[in-house]
Amino acid sequence: MSVTAFSPAAAGRELTRMRDLRPLVHCLTNDVVQEITADVLLAAGASPAMVVAPEEASTFTAISGAVLINTGTPTADMMRSMRESAAAANEHGVPWVLDPVAAGVIKWRDGEIYSLLALGPTVVRGNASEIRALAGIGTGGKGVDSLDSSESAIEAAKALAVQSGAVVCVTGETDFVTDGERTVSVTGGNAMATLVVGTGCSLSALVAAFLAGAPDRVDAVAAACSLAKLAAHRAGLTARAPGSFHMAYIDALYLIEEKDFA
Amino acid sequence: MSVTAFSPAAAGRELTRMRDLRPLVHCLTNDVVQEITADVLLAAGASPAMVVAPEEASTFTAISGAVLINTGTPTADMMRSMRESAAAANEHGVPWVLDPVAAGVIKWRDGEIYSLLALGPTVVRGNASEIRALAGIGTGGKGVDSLDSSESAIEAAKALAVQSGAVVCVTGETDFVTDGERTVSVTGGNAMATLVVGTGCSLSALVAAFLAGAPDRVDAVAAACSLAKLAAHRAGLTARAPGSFHMAYIDALYLIEEKDFA
Amino acid sequence: MSVTAFSPAAAGRELTRMRDLRPLVHCLTNDVVQEITADVLLAAGASPAMVVAPEEASTFTAISGAVLINTGTPTADMMRSMRESAAAANEHGVPWVLDPVAAGVIKWRDGEIYSLLALGPTVVRGNASEIRALAGIGTGGKGVDSLDSSESAIEAAKALAVQSGAVVCVTGETDFVTDGERTVSVTGGNAMATLVVGTGCSLSALVAAFLAGAPDRVDAVAAACSLAKLAAHRAGLTARAPGSFHMAYIDALYLIEEKDFA
Repeated sequence: MSVTAFSPAAAGRELTRMRDLRPLVHCLTNDVVQEITADVLLAAGASPAMVVAPEEASTFTAISGAVLINTGTPTADMMRSMRESAAAANEHGVPWVLDPVAAGVIKWRDGEIYSLLALGPTVVRGNASEIRALAGIGTGGKGVDSLDSSESAIEAAKALAVQSGAVVCVTGETDFVTDGERTVSVTGGNAMATLVVGTGCSLSALVAAFLAGAPDRVDAVAAACSLAKLAAHRAGLTARAPGSFHMAYIDALYLIEEKDFA
Repeated sequence: MSVTAFSPAAAGRELTRMRDLRPLVHCLTNDVVQEITADVLLAAGASPAMVVAPEEASTFTAISGAVLINTGTPTADMMRSMRESAAAANEHGVPWVLDPVAAGVIKWRDGEIYSLLALGPTVVRGNASEIRALAGIGTGGKGVDSLDSSESAIEAAKALAVQSGAVVCVTGETDFVTDGERTVSVTGGNAMATLVVGTGCSLSALVAAFLAGAPDRVDAVAAACSLAKLAAHRAGLTARAPGSFHMAYIDALYLIEEKDFA
Repeated sequence: MSVTAFSPAAAGRELTRMRDLRPLVHCLTNDVVQEITADVLLAAGASPAMVVAPEEASTFTAISGAVLINTGTPTADMMRSMRESAAAANEHGVPWVLDPVAAGVIKWRDGEIYSLLALGPTVVRGNASEIRALAGIGTGGKGVDSLDSSESAIEAAKALAVQSGAVVCVTGETDFVTDGERTVSVTGGNAMATLVVGTGCSLSALVAAFLAGAPDRVDAVAAACSLAKLAAHRAGLTARAPGSFHMAYIDALYLIEEKDFA
């Protein structure tokens, strides 16, 4: 396995590109993380919109810069909106991210996730347990938390990328991004991020933001991971517990500039 | 166009009146801003209640001090609850606020918003794009963000007030409140509020709180805007980024007293 | 009425026991408090999971350490998931907590709450108005806020415990926990907690976390109350308003250790 550390300078350039575009990110996500997802996008420089009713979701997709589809709390109506928005994204050339929350845990949800995967996401972003489950390796996590290290899912991520055509991003203490051929890693961050609900789900929204108009998918995804890692690292310099960490993380997403990646 | 700056002293008096009443505000709002809406009302001195099931929403309206109806994520059940609560509010003399999120962007949602507007809201609160769209002027915003300045919607706000019988409030860098005859403006605030999701939606909840038992609708709405502007201004004195701004904004809503408007 | 102050040392021991277990808490709760509920559980040392679709909720219950059922925004689908998860919890010996939000206010919702109560919760956690209403005493609260002191509900709590077989916890300025025979009290806390939405609802989630694998139900519930009271007390030492209180409360839940109860 050949993995290259992602270039901080490239992450910085991608950040500036994303902010210049200020992409409209259409978010179809779970009930728990709606607010932090919107706040993360706003702080980082994107524009969130949660348009979720089946009557309007796919219409809105067509005018969006990117779409996030997260299966955390998949009701029947939300699943319909997700499938129709994914199809509309494909039709209109809008990139979309699948965050397969809790893949490998419950058979019914796995069926829903596979139905989305079959629609051809631009990127799949998950933890090690989720990516291993989708690639047919491993046994799923404990609820929404992964029991595996991200390293353990690198080969699964490559296999899933080849199978699905998606760029696959497996996050953890180190993040890995692969299109099946090129694999890059992103280090840094702070473990306290795992004690704030929605840092993972909102990273998938950042991935969508960076994908809008991106010249290279692997670079875009790795840049989103780099921003989240650097923001978590900075938050950890001042915050001693998850409440203040949450605030400092949002602040850092706003304050970080291209030069900070140098 | 004749616009008068709203009196800070009147804003302070309205704040004390609202806090003495501690109105129960029945909130039918979108999935993204539930928590910040409740926190804003609690901090400011009102009592929030999100009673949303069609089986109970309109029953609860009858015992509420005011109602907020926000169309940010309009599911079929929520739309039914909104229409029935609006009708119950009319029947029981309870004031209600319509926040027509994203009016002018999607045809289906516009139809839902017009069905609510036809029920005769006490107040309509929106950004310039939304108010211009409802008045039949302009082309809608970019998702939930306005592309127009609030000044550009003053005439639209007046026209909408005359058409609908509602007091219309268009917010932006300057807020304007009009009943079609008298128009007042509120300045101040801080642009960082636009980077915290729900500051606009929760302002509509504050408008509802101030409307409960209000002797004058224009004064009540302008006072709610004045409180939000002053709180945002204060938050901006200490917060350097959206995470800390969010916290400081809630704190300021709680700490501001009548004398602070002098 | 014989009430004993709950032992701080026992609270500390229960906290360590809970953290060692890191229980998976299956949360079926209302739309407003999803994020704070997850953040409170994570900060305190438990693992939250919001699995709510009727197609998967009860399946997930079977692999959970405890279940929270909160009736704050009871849609038809959520009520079905709640009933099926309660039944699954009973079948698999998983403890579950009923938080009967706004019991006594609306007839329809009371019917839903009674249908859950009839399934035999391990614990019922509510404010004085809710507990009095469920025991057939008193007239309900003002929306979700209690109008009665917790002391006024001690006898109602005992009666409800005897009727239902549940441990009953009535919270307020002082918290009381009873199984109908033994009644303990927990003091401390800070009134500002009532100005942050979800502190009560998330306490019910903490109660569920402490119930997982607990040797004694009354001790487990009183320990959860003790942790919340101590965290609110600590938050009040530094926070001057609800925004900063919210952050400090989450921080305190994370930072408090067994020795801090000494």
